[in-house]
Amino acid sequence: MTDATRGFVFHIADNDPARILAATASARNAIAALGDDVQVEILAQGGAVTGASKSAAQAGDLVVALQELPTVKVTLCSLAAKGHGITEDDLVEGARLVPTATAHAVQRQFDGWAYIRA
Amino acid sequence: MTDATRGFVFHIADNDPARILAATASARNAIAALGDDVQVEILAQGGAVTGASKSAAQAGDLVVALQELPTVKVTLCSLAAKGHGITEDDLVEGARLVPTATAHAVQRQFDGWAYIRA
Amino acid sequence: MTDATRGFVFHIADNDPARILAATASARNAIAALGDDVQVEILAQGGAVTGASKSAAQAGDLVVALQELPTVKVTLCSLAAKGHGITEDDLVEGARLVPTATAHAVQRQFDGWAYIRA
Repeated sequence: MTDATRGFVFHIADNDPARILAATASARNAIAALGDDVQVEILAQGGAVTGASKSAAQAGDLVVALQELPTVKVTLCSLAAKGHGITEDDLVEGARLVPTATAHAVQRQFDGWAYIRA
Repeated sequence: MTDATRGFVFHIADNDPARILAATASARNAIAALGDDVQVEILAQGGAVTGASKSAAQAGDLVVALQELPTVKVTLCSLAAKGHGITEDDLVEGARLVPTATAHAVQRQFDGWAYIRA
Repeated sequence: MTDATRGFVFHIADNDPARILAATASARNAIAALGDDVQVEILAQGGAVTGASKSAAQAGDLVVALQELPTVKVTLCSLAAKGHGITEDDLVEGARLVPTATAHAVQRQFDGWAYIRA
């Protein structure tokens, strides 16, 4: 297991497949550079939550992130998911919901994590 | 009074009413999740400063933030305000100017605050 | 020499001349406000790396940042540079490459630096 006390949140709020793809690539590169002891969490808010839905057209990008990068967490804002009609059952395996994306990103930083806006 | 030593800056730089509205909603949700001991500051830069002007079309969003969320600060970059012809008299009640938005956001982080880009 | 232990990363990922220009102006204002003991690093990722290429149309903006603001570092993601066919020889004087932009911004934050998304 990696040390959970350090990592970074990669905040995606736009439903822009190109940006989600770029963020996934950046996460992959950052993991290779930082090593396994740095946790990576892709935090999807707003329209970006649709990228982790099984039925979403661009789901592949986040699915790839989850499958290829076992240390990456994919976390979705539950409020945004609800707004897009996405339930827990719709999520690709490995993705999970947090109550509020912004509060989650703030708490991570209070815990010493870094923050990157995609 | 809340403890001023912890909070987060919500940085808005675009004059995009949809984004300002989303940021206001996110701030509201984050406050509900984090509790009153976490300060929230909406920091408007660039065209976003017009959202806190009495005469701005989309002023309502930031006004709502100020009225409904008493612990939220709304802070405007004085340089951007000047560039948009907004004086201190034009500001909705509760909004205030800081000399430079970027420097302000940096100082907040040096003081232990979190940073979120809207 | 300034104290390298404190500074901020100004993260630019879009090849948007207006945004690069605004970021350069913000960096200039922040430096004036924070003083010389705070390091400023403009970190260009994605299409923004072209702004530090000698041949780029909008190179002037980052060149100005480098020439007018001696304490500003301009750092480019080597992966993005490679993707845009930019080699070390193409860079304006003072710009340098880092292996991975995201990992670099994360490490800076782990070292106590602030982070601003342009």
